[in-house]
Amino acid sequence: MLSIKNPTLIVNRAIASRNIDRMLEKARQSDVIFRPHFKTHQSEEIAQLFREKRVDKITVSSVKMAQFFAFRGWHNITIAFPFNVLEMETVNQLASQIKLNILVESTLVADQLAGQAKAELGVFIKIDTGYHRTGLLPSQVIETESVLNTLEHSSFLHFKGFLTHAGHTYHARGRQEIMQIKASALANLQQLKEKYKSRFPDLKISYGDTPSCSQAADCKGFDEIRPGNFVYFDVMQYHLGSCSPADIAVAVACPVMATHPEREEAVVYGGAVHLSKEFIAADDNFRLYGYIVKLNRDGSWGTPVNGAYVSSLSQEHGIVKLPKNELKNLKPGDLLGVLPVHSCLTANLLKDETHFI
Amino acid sequence: MLSIKNPTLIVNRAIASRNIDRMLEKARQSDVIFRPHFKTHQSEEIAQLFREKRVDKITVSSVKMAQFFAFRGWHNITIAFPFNVLEMETVNQLASQIKLNILVESTLVADQLAGQAKAELGVFIKIDTGYHRTGLLPSQVIETESVLNTLEHSSFLHFKGFLTHAGHTYHARGRQEIMQIKASALANLQQLKEKYKSRFPDLKISYGDTPSCSQAADCKGFDEIRPGNFVYFDVMQYHLGSCSPADIAVAVACPVMATHPEREEAVVYGGAVHLSKEFIAADDNFRLYGYIVKLNRDGSWGTPVNGAYVSSLSQEHGIVKLPKNELKNLKPGDLLGVLPVHSCLTANLLKDETHFI
Repeated sequence: MLSIKNPTLIVNRAIASRNIDRMLEKARQSDVIFRPHFKTHQSEEIAQLFREKRVDKITVSSVKMAQFFAFRGWHNITIAFPFNVLEMETVNQLASQIKLNILVESTLVADQLAGQAKAELGVFIKIDTGYHRTGLLPSQVIETESVLNTLEHSSFLHFKGFLTHAGHTYHARGRQEIMQIKASALANLQQLKEKYKSRFPDLKISYGDTPSCSQAADCKGFDEIRPGNFVYFDVMQYHLGSCSPADIAVAVACPVMATHPEREEAVVYGGAVHLSKEFIAADDNFRLYGYIVKLNRDGSWGTPVNGAYVSSLSQEHGIVKLPKNELKNLKPGDLLGVLPVHSCLTANLLKDETHFI
Repeated sequence: MLSIKNPTLIVNRAIASRNIDRMLEKARQSDVIFRPHFKTHQSEEIAQLFREKRVDKITVSSVKMAQFFAFRGWHNITIAFPFNVLEMETVNQLASQIKLNILVESTLVADQLAGQAKAELGVFIKIDTGYHRTGLLPSQVIETESVLNTLEHSSFLHFKGFLTHAGHTYHARGRQEIMQIKASALANLQQLKEKYKSRFPDLKISYGDTPSCSQAADCKGFDEIRPGNFVYFDVMQYHLGSCSPADIAVAVACPVMATHPEREEAVVYGGAVHLSKEFIAADDNFRLYGYIVKLNRDGSWGTPVNGAYVSSLSQEHGIVKLPKNELKNLKPGDLLGVLPVHSCLTANLLKDETHFI
């Protein structure tokens, strides 16, 4: 068995590779640029997998993450996060070394950028296609025009196109609603493209989110897709219908501390600082922080154990609900695998405690 | 103003020091050993504050944390976490260098310990006084006897006493229920002490948790208390009645990315990977991930802004609900302070991004 003593993220390269292949194939068939989001894994090893498959354009969610990957040879990066004007200096440095794209969503920030940019910088306008987190609404034509004017008159800034993240697919109930969200976002972005393509012939429309990109038959109509989570998937994506349990490429190996057969529970070393407190709620009295899998000697794992799940988390502990017949073979010092609810947050917490198989 | 460009935990030393003084005074007046839990801060600087106040016994929640503080001169440490038999080797090493206490809650683990311990090790029996997460129930007399027999016959293991963590105070509704939980735990532990004190004259009963220890007039009757969160407090403790907002010693400085006056929102750089996804729910449609404070030039902050809170979190973003009159003075590049819901998790995430004032 693996020599694991603490909660450790096990990444199954073969599953991750298969997940990448599928999305890559969909991007090719849809004739869109594939610019995967690297925030999910933040990992050199997984980045290498993408590189082997000839992916050379990536998305990240912070300037720091852009620096991390730029330093490791990635030279075409979009920071898919509203530009933080406080980081202008770092962005100027980075933009002088690689092809860097950033997002703006207001005249105010566009003006500051135009005043302070000292290197060639690609700029996407972030469009809010219904998630209502960030971005300009398609109806905010005056603000959009104003940002475009600023970009057009800057010598360093280059308007790249319109970008959206349809994060509301995460709250959708079923595939049909996810497909409606995607169709509506596509219509919004295509209208904008139609309106501005004579003025900006190279403008691209860029779309993200794993639920849409996984569940759609194709991604035709967009110019670029930026899904991220699909490389690992997780219990949330399974619940959304984006993957099967067998597509989940990560499990957290957790040492068993104690068993409590009288309440059908085991206590594992693996808590909120390892898994994150992301959960799926069926109702007020039921929260699920992860599925349970049995780990094989080589670190691989089987299908989720029926009726088993992480029911609560403290800082370092997890409480696992396990049927009695499973509990009776379990003892302190054994390892249980936990399929995380949200692999991005779990991978971030266990960056320094990751094992690849 | 502080030169902050990314989400940063600001720790107000003066508030933390005052919080420590109060708890220290309560421990003195109650004539109990004060063994604060260091999992909340995991910080050398805050540890130094405790040291200056002559605290020399501490609690941690993992073997790693014990190593961290042992290396920094802390020589009397209890790992308040059911013993992980996979870490026996490290524990043996550590126990040969410092006074180390660990917890057991089963004969199985006690037997393994007895077989493999190679250095003097203090052992507490973890008692479940109602939280039902870990520990032996007071009614499990046969199992308790069996563990005690194992400890008594080992040359390296020394029975130290009975320890409980009344984590169910976090789910209590009001001070009265918290005081009932404390009284019940005290009665449980005192009964055990009474029963075994002739056989183990030095046995101690040890109690933890910030809600009880903060809200009780005193902690008399116990031999030791191990609260941790009180050093920083947080929004959850305020909701539980353990502190006032002015006692919260940490705020996360978050750069403002965008404002959306039409929906009374600001978008800040500060998400789940900075604050953690811990929240307080009023009902299904209302989740609060932190209160909002205005930061002064020196990094200190005022009282929470009325009607303002973090309403949702993505990996790197936070959505802040802010009244219109507050929003109108806010622009991208400004900093907002967020009082975290659960300071232990936030401090853990921002360990490398902490600023002391």
